[in-house]
Amino acid sequence: MLADECRRRFATADHVYLATAGADGGPHLVPVVVVVTGDEICFAVDDKPKRTTSLRRLRNIAENPRVAFLADHYDADWSRLWWVRADAEARVLRDGAERERAVEALRLRHRQYRHQDLAGPVVLARVMRWSGWAASP
Amino acid sequence: MLADECRRRFATADHVYLATAGADGGPHLVPVVVVVTGDEICFAVDDKPKRTTSLRRLRNIAENPRVAFLADHYDADWSRLWWVRADAEARVLRDGAERERAVEALRLRHRQYRHQDLAGPVVLARVMRWSGWAASP
Repeated sequence: MLADECRRRFATADHVYLATAGADGGPHLVPVVVVVTGDEICFAVDDKPKRTTSLRRLRNIAENPRVAFLADHYDADWSRLWWVRADAEARVLRDGAERERAVEALRLRHRQYRHQDLAGPVVLARVMRWSGWAASP
Repeated sequence: MLADECRRRFATADHVYLATAGADGGPHLVPVVVVVTGDEICFAVDDKPKRTTSLRRLRNIAENPRVAFLADHYDADWSRLWWVRADAEARVLRDGAERERAVEALRLRHRQYRHQDLAGPVVLARVMRWSGWAASP
């Protein structure tokens, strides 16, 4: 699948999956709500009661900035399956104008964020490679 | 979330996500169709036209057996979100009776597999740790 088609499909997903791997090599996996702008993907670590998990994904990124995001479409009719993966390099924004812009973009994209505080860190990832697969081209 | 509740929710998912990490530390992420029996999760590398991807996940497991699976439920109403993660150790079965039993279990669980050849490798993963999160307990 060409990169433009990958970008287009990925941007339609309300939520995607994030894989990170820390210095110990163990992969970690969580769903995240993102906003995509060109080759930049960003997500917030919101303030739900999951402190340990949040720390783990941030610690992994600090140890190893390589991450992967996956958006997919599932259907009981497997001829309709598709997925898109973004291999990216991530960094954590804890304050500053870049973080503020990312929070603003997240609020615009997801109405559920409009009344949340979003005072925590934001992760900004630059996509190095798009890849994708569809059962029916 | 307790392990039994994690197992119960995970087993309801038609498809889940698999994260692996090879010796180079880069995380890899694909959707997979699984069958779960107690603390064993298995999936087949079927014969769709995605040779490169298939090899990557198998190569990563050969280099590093630690994997993570994620099942989740998304809803526009974020009070209904939940996810379950299984941290596991995986190995690849290329032939033998254990592989045959796994293929049989996959065919029973997913009718879409009943008329597929499934001649490729099967991955069998033993869950070392269940964890989960739900917006509403």
